Amino acid sequence: MRETIAWLGGEPLFATPLRIVRPAFPAVEDLVSDLETILDSGRVTNNGPFVVEFERWLSEYLGADTLVFCNGQTALLTMLKASGIEGGEVIVPAFTFPATVHAIRWSGAAPVFADILDDGTFRINPDDVRRKITDKTVAILAVDPYGIACDYADLDEIGRDRRIRVLYDSAAAFGTRLGGRAVGAFGDAQIFSFHATKAFSCMEGGALCSRDPTILRRARALRNFGQVAEGDFSEVGLNGKMMEVSALIGLKQRSGFESSRTVRLRSVARLREGLETIPGILVGKAPRGQEPIWLYLPVVIDEEAFGLDRDDVAAALQKENLHVRKYYSPPCHRLAPYLGHRDDLLPVTDYVASRILALPVYNDMKDYECDLIVQAFAELHAASAKISRLSSRDV
Amino acid sequence: MRETIAWLGGEPLFATPLRIVRPAFPAVEDLVSDLETILDSGRVTNNGPFVVEFERWLSEYLGADTLVFCNGQTALLTMLKASGIEGGEVIVPAFTFPATVHAIRWSGAAPVFADILDDGTFRINPDDVRRKITDKTVAILAVDPYGIACDYADLDEIGRDRRIRVLYDSAAAFGTRLGGRAVGAFGDAQIFSFHATKAFSCMEGGALCSRDPTILRRARALRNFGQVAEGDFSEVGLNGKMMEVSALIGLKQRSGFESSRTVRLRSVARLREGLETIPGILVGKAPRGQEPIWLYLPVVIDEEAFGLDRDDVAAALQKENLHVRKYYSPPCHRLAPYLGHRDDLLPVTDYVASRILALPVYNDMKDYECDLIVQAFAELHAASAKISRLSSRDV
Repeated sequence: MRETIAWLGGEPLFATPLRIVRPAFPAVEDLVSDLETILDSGRVTNNGPFVVEFERWLSEYLGADTLVFCNGQTALLTMLKASGIEGGEVIVPAFTFPATVHAIRWSGAAPVFADILDDGTFRINPDDVRRKITDKTVAILAVDPYGIACDYADLDEIGRDRRIRVLYDSAAAFGTRLGGRAVGAFGDAQIFSFHATKAFSCMEGGALCSRDPTILRRARALRNFGQVAEGDFSEVGLNGKMMEVSALIGLKQRSGFESSRTVRLRSVARLREGLETIPGILVGKAPRGQEPIWLYLPVVIDEEAFGLDRDDVAAALQKENLHVRKYYSPPCHRLAPYLGHRDDLLPVTDYVASRILALPVYNDMKDYECDLIVQAFAELHAASAKISRLSSRDV
Repeated sequence: MRETIAWLGGEPLFATPLRIVRPAFPAVEDLVSDLETILDSGRVTNNGPFVVEFERWLSEYLGADTLVFCNGQTALLTMLKASGIEGGEVIVPAFTFPATVHAIRWSGAAPVFADILDDGTFRINPDDVRRKITDKTVAILAVDPYGIACDYADLDEIGRDRRIRVLYDSAAAFGTRLGGRAVGAFGDAQIFSFHATKAFSCMEGGALCSRDPTILRRARALRNFGQVAEGDFSEVGLNGKMMEVSALIGLKQRSGFESSRTVRLRSVARLREGLETIPGILVGKAPRGQEPIWLYLPVVIDEEAFGLDRDDVAAALQKENLHVRKYYSPPCHRLAPYLGHRDDLLPVTDYVASRILALPVYNDMKDYECDLIVQAFAELHAASAKISRLSSRDV
């Protein structure tokens, strides 16, 4: 047992850094043969056989036709364009990675920010969405924060009632289960990311899933520069093509994913059990009937009860070699490109964003790693009075 | 010697199809060790060491600081955004792959089409650019068709005189040499593609090269969702990141590229020598002092002199198992998304686009393949009278 926490001069709890993500990929031996096929054929991109097979599996897994993309952001740009978004207002949470809001700007529309729920799930508040709808609203672009699925049923209903598009940026949520099956066919369309930081990764990659044949047809053309037949470019497209090598890695990730998902759920349960005994830590919750993939485990730090504020906690954990992130902070309505929206009242977003920390959750997380994370928080809380006295003396 | 051409029932000249491109990649044995390093480290994207090394080499090769991207189109979108293009008019040739013009639309600006030169080089006409400049013009986005560098000196001068941006979509031109060195640091910025169809390929990939530190700084942020420091998003960015595996392939392509370039030049010379003896074929030319990379060899078919029109020639060559393309036809002002511009008078573009064919040029092209291509055209011309008689009888 060390004498004191790292911030006060003790040894770091983690001998080597526990990083915010720990991506795991197939062994190179398992790839060589297929890789040789790909490189020798010269067919390395442009809807090759591995992409086709990966899309077939994804369509089955997600429960609706799915197209893959070079990355999640390109899937997102494509989803907006394929849904006919070219102007007007799109309602979006400010509590999200800025990529979500950027995509609205790229489409030519303007973001209108909605607040999140005050229930520990960080999901967009459907009642605030209702309040923000005007005659300029063309779509809701909702988000699954940390992989926690937002209220699809309620949002889909708003879309039907008000005849606006309902689109889901589920970049973090591939593998999240709702009522026993993977989320994937909600709203008009839904996108996912397979970036290296994600629980299911192709290195870089994304997917668009939809039940709407028009959106799928347009998205397929948009992904290939808007081309529908040789020389016939019906859309202002881009290059959204996934490489064969990414699809190959995706196909290889399938077999281990179910056990990775179980490890993530078990690790989050273990972290939760430990962290909830410490004053001033609110641990993010899953809505009933849902198993989020838990891209990270979000916790809200209440300075008064914990004894230190979020920024001090993050700095202290860094000294323990425990890397956490302040996702999603600052919230998007506080970022330079969106400051015109500054007057929006988003009280829950502002409260949470200034107190949030995202903790690592891995596909291969060990119980002792969870226990050390809990220990780091517990010891920090125990030392908080001493740290505060030292800090006030510094002043 | 066969009795007749394939269209009239003879055996195809090519036993196996000669496709429009024949990409060549490193052998998998040469990649395994580095690939293992990449996959085991989990650092598969986000500006990893292979990307950094590839950028270092590119900056030296191109003669100015260079950033790499997931593909050329994303580099192009980024170039426009990093140059401050958000509206106004951008002058662009209609004789280009539509990706060029799409990027202008994605940026929020409007394309204004300029005609090409009538000198067999298919380059944008600087005098027509001058004529198209209005007080709304914010930039010229010129193109290097088939890798033939446009008139950088003249265009750069227009930009300086009129105080507008000069940007180059050199997607096809990586490896083109001007005055003995690779083109790369012209205008305000210049982009390249490393797509599988290109002479230098990373499977998918692109690069942005510039001497302007502001453009580079903005492009670097834009490529990473607009992020300049953790939580500080200054720009409406996207995900433009190149994967490590693409950078690895790029690094491995360096050693063979100079000899590939030589093969391409020699093959084009051989094709030219043969094709120029056939009536009704105008072979694309290199401007003085320039060695284009010749992504394809463009030829213009004069129906009267050759005896068949371009579409019939393409169909007849297809039966010989010789795959050609009608790049860049239809020209962009004739495409659905740009029909508002239909009244633009672009006589050279319209003349060329209805008569153009792009012939394959490979990094490993064989002399006999060049000779068979010439033979295919020669025999087709010789049979053209007979074909025309048969066709008129069909009517």
